[in-house]
Amino acid sequence: MAGKFVSMRNLKFLMYEVFDLVALTKAPYYSQHNQKGFDMVLDASMKLAQKMLYPLFEEMDRKAPYLEDGQVKVHPQVRAIMKEFGQGGWIGASFPEAWDGQQLPGLLHCACQLIKSSANYSAGVYPGLTSGAARLINLFASDELKATYLPNMMDGKWQGTMALTEPQAGSSLGDLATTAFPTDQGYYLLKGQKVFISAGDHDGVDNVVHMLIGRIDGAPQGVRGISLFLVPKKRPDGKGKLISNDVTVSQVFHKMGYRGAPITELSFGDKDDCRGFLVGEAGRGLMHMFQMMNEARIGVGLGAAAIASAAYYAALDYCQTRPQGRKMGAKDMNTPQVPIIEHADVRRMLLFQRAVVEGSEGLLMQCSRYEDMLNIAPKEEHARYELLLDLLTPMAKSYPSEMGILATSQAIQCLGGYGYCEDFPVEQHFRDSRIHPIHEGTTGIQGMDLLGRKVMMKDGQAFILFLEEARKDVAAARAVAGVAPLAEQLEAALKTLEEVTAQLAGLIGKKGVEIFLADATLYLEMFGTIAIAWQWLLQATAARKALDNGPKPADMNFYQGKMITARYFFAYELPKIKGLVQRLTDGDPLTVEMESSYFSD
Amino acid sequence: MAGKFVSMRNLKFLMYEVFDLVALTKAPYYSQHNQKGFDMVLDASMKLAQKMLYPLFEEMDRKAPYLEDGQVKVHPQVRAIMKEFGQGGWIGASFPEAWDGQQLPGLLHCACQLIKSSANYSAGVYPGLTSGAARLINLFASDELKATYLPNMMDGKWQGTMALTEPQAGSSLGDLATTAFPTDQGYYLLKGQKVFISAGDHDGVDNVVHMLIGRIDGAPQGVRGISLFLVPKKRPDGKGKLISNDVTVSQVFHKMGYRGAPITELSFGDKDDCRGFLVGEAGRGLMHMFQMMNEARIGVGLGAAAIASAAYYAALDYCQTRPQGRKMGAKDMNTPQVPIIEHADVRRMLLFQRAVVEGSEGLLMQCSRYEDMLNIAPKEEHARYELLLDLLTPMAKSYPSEMGILATSQAIQCLGGYGYCEDFPVEQHFRDSRIHPIHEGTTGIQGMDLLGRKVMMKDGQAFILFLEEARKDVAAARAVAGVAPLAEQLEAALKTLEEVTAQLAGLIGKKGVEIFLADATLYLEMFGTIAIAWQWLLQATAARKALDNGPKPADMNFYQGKMITARYFFAYELPKIKGLVQRLTDGDPLTVEMESSYFSD
Repeated sequence: MAGKFVSMRNLKFLMYEVFDLVALTKAPYYSQHNQKGFDMVLDASMKLAQKMLYPLFEEMDRKAPYLEDGQVKVHPQVRAIMKEFGQGGWIGASFPEAWDGQQLPGLLHCACQLIKSSANYSAGVYPGLTSGAARLINLFASDELKATYLPNMMDGKWQGTMALTEPQAGSSLGDLATTAFPTDQGYYLLKGQKVFISAGDHDGVDNVVHMLIGRIDGAPQGVRGISLFLVPKKRPDGKGKLISNDVTVSQVFHKMGYRGAPITELSFGDKDDCRGFLVGEAGRGLMHMFQMMNEARIGVGLGAAAIASAAYYAALDYCQTRPQGRKMGAKDMNTPQVPIIEHADVRRMLLFQRAVVEGSEGLLMQCSRYEDMLNIAPKEEHARYELLLDLLTPMAKSYPSEMGILATSQAIQCLGGYGYCEDFPVEQHFRDSRIHPIHEGTTGIQGMDLLGRKVMMKDGQAFILFLEEARKDVAAARAVAGVAPLAEQLEAALKTLEEVTAQLAGLIGKKGVEIFLADATLYLEMFGTIAIAWQWLLQATAARKALDNGPKPADMNFYQGKMITARYFFAYELPKIKGLVQRLTDGDPLTVEMESSYFSD
Repeated sequence: MAGKFVSMRNLKFLMYEVFDLVALTKAPYYSQHNQKGFDMVLDASMKLAQKMLYPLFEEMDRKAPYLEDGQVKVHPQVRAIMKEFGQGGWIGASFPEAWDGQQLPGLLHCACQLIKSSANYSAGVYPGLTSGAARLINLFASDELKATYLPNMMDGKWQGTMALTEPQAGSSLGDLATTAFPTDQGYYLLKGQKVFISAGDHDGVDNVVHMLIGRIDGAPQGVRGISLFLVPKKRPDGKGKLISNDVTVSQVFHKMGYRGAPITELSFGDKDDCRGFLVGEAGRGLMHMFQMMNEARIGVGLGAAAIASAAYYAALDYCQTRPQGRKMGAKDMNTPQVPIIEHADVRRMLLFQRAVVEGSEGLLMQCSRYEDMLNIAPKEEHARYELLLDLLTPMAKSYPSEMGILATSQAIQCLGGYGYCEDFPVEQHFRDSRIHPIHEGTTGIQGMDLLGRKVMMKDGQAFILFLEEARKDVAAARAVAGVAPLAEQLEAALKTLEEVTAQLAGLIGKKGVEIFLADATLYLEMFGTIAIAWQWLLQATAARKALDNGPKPADMNFYQGKMITARYFFAYELPKIKGLVQRLTDGDPLTVEMESSYFSD
């Protein structure tokens, strides 16, 4: 039987008790759904996770992808996984019915993704990327492209990818060099290299569809010259067959973790026969791609939270069953040893993990809630939810990613020497988790995105909306006995956030943009911690109310644990912003002043 | 050619400029040495590291130890490494001449170990453990045991180990069950299991000598019933041959990192024919073992700092050579991309690593300095240095171990996606580094050791001495322009440390020991950060003086970089204690109050 990797109880708490998923069904867009149906979808996710994904978690790591005769070989079960995701409707689960999707609320979709990714993060990447690519095609491609590519993608027979990074450009997308030469045949001839393309080629599907950004020959330099293309690995020959489209795999990277899915380096048009099809408007490729990018960034945060969840439950199981030592003061060696969960320091390590996992899940669901509002709110309110979503995205990506490393590391620590060995899953979780601060925009990039763009855009509108939202919840929490002290702490943190933000914004004029953004990563860390505190306040408020209403006996432990974990977050995690605030406001631009040559000796 | 893994310039700075190694040669015990000799030893270390150890760093990871026919097989070069360490006199480098050692100062020995361990941490473990075991034998064993075992150990032909942990006991040493049955033949018959024994068996040596703790049959329960034994894998049969001593390997663990050295599970006396020899006094085994344990704990910190050093230089090299993006504001895409070290956030990541590495190296050398004082100071001053050493040991173990994970993680981040791949060494450094918070006493154990024992012992004498030492350096730094502001910051931190410590000590009577020690790990983190700040103040003072005295042009970058890194530590790292202080003094014993059942749902 599969071990526990996620808490269904907690996901339902978040969906139903914190974010009131059922209320969405009153809106016409979601009116075909009801709670019974939601529960069935959750159960189906759990069944898929337990029966198919979790049993392959370790094996897909041990049998990592490799390149053979120009073809990337992956675990044989990847084909079955893709088929299952396709047939189960998971690839288009959150798509509107007009796209042949299930039109599921984002909140539910988020929960389902958390279930599947915590069972096996790598496995979820294949259908997840296919879904993202299909979304782009639905949004921007011609009807002909849609008809040619979408059905097989939705069925899980063809893989979708996002092909952005190039060897010489990395995070500097403006420097990318892949070129599309126009023809008079309705297609472009592509030429260039892409690197670190997840699922960029494999034998678990019959074809791969790359959503690729490149530059039409002669287009302007920088990001304004970038267009989006659909570039298949194999193209239909017009006679019902697929033929090679001159896309070759130059290498599969051997990675420390996340080994169940291949990351590839690809070469397009080595034989000048790689056809690509413009998607959307020429010159707006990056803007189009960012439709997928924001989703992908939140998806990375989700994957990170999911891995931390799996590691947490593995650690919890160990701590509940491993006897060692005795309670402090009970020094009689004749008494049996106690499970290590009885030691305060072990509980602290577990609470840390739980706080990261459930706090991150909360923030991810908060984003989903705003996505859902975009489907049901009147047009004039859309800007509000778009701004909030834009603002939260870098935090929803980075907080789980950065803290996920620390959480999985603490899971190892709970197991001691055993945690460092392959006999237990936590060492794999630790290795897997390390990818997240890197892919889909490094933490450094997210920091600059948050402080340099999101907080500043439209005269700080997104930032102001965030404060409104958080303070609305602070006001509600103040009215709940037992939660009010946490509300006061959050209010103080929000004030600090306003002050620090104002002080930093003042640097732009006084000291210039470089100094303004020099510690954007620390600002992201501070803001992210406050955003998670906000989520913990919401969760504590819901749990406290449930306790006050006399919960079912079976729910008592859950709500009590929730309350203590909230207290943990405010006692141990939120105070970490103090050091960050001191640094962000001390005015010593030492990283800018430092000469690069000072690193030499 | 080997890449850079350590800074010789920095090691010499610490040895000669901060800790005045040459002054030691005025004492009779070290009078046979001089600076020229020290430099030759350093060069020999570097040569060994570059020629033999570093080239095997990756290979020893890829070809990990395995068990075959009851014998652990390691990389074939391990035999050559042991031979080289034996013949080079490295195993007894810090031993007194009376033990056939080199009688090198601890400061120099520390530098040599840093060089070798940064080249290849796993490789250094084999001779390092042998050295530790030989020290115990020299200190406590009979002349007969010395004569039988030491020569081959000192020559690197026989491996030494420390065999403490048992499967059912882990950190709870009082519960260990390995039993020694007395005979009338001058030996004991051993029976029991030991687990996680580093280098517990391998084919790079002809024999393995275990320094094992166990319980003489009928001895009292708990730690008072523990005795120390020498238990060889093969014993001399009295006729010049080695015969099996009934020690068998039950498994070799497959670890995430630190794969160049085997960790084994051993079974003693399955056939009732495992002979062990009492070392030292019966019932004082744990006390004897702790002679080796403190050395081993500082050794773990040293290994962690060394790995972080290697990762830092790999990251630095990448950042200096990888072009990407442009300076903030320079948006002309026609200009070439700049090396990423030109970005402030990348410099911040590098400064973090450098601050951890050089700060840790400073604290380790501080410990060595106190060890050296024990060899040359008058008897009446010994208590002082022993107390200081006792107090610093848990920090010298834990700060580099915990921060080493973060530093190697930042090294990966500097390389982006490449850092996550096996093509670069940093992913191995990250995996290797994760062992250190676990072995030789987890961080949690170190925290309780620091707060529960070291700070409290002898009415806080060690703590008072630490404050004296730090304040002496604060006073000196106040007199140096450009360093005085850092001195004020350290003084403020020392005051905070005193206050927090007093408040915590007050809990013992008021709330009991469990609550007093509940956050000992956080206390360790706070104290460790302050101890490293002290080291950075010392280094800044020395660097500032050197700059004021008009250094050689070739040294300018080094000293300037040193000053900025010190500023970095005080601006970015020391403020982290603020959050810890808030938590340590907020009085909410939630980890103690939390019911274990609240983790269920």
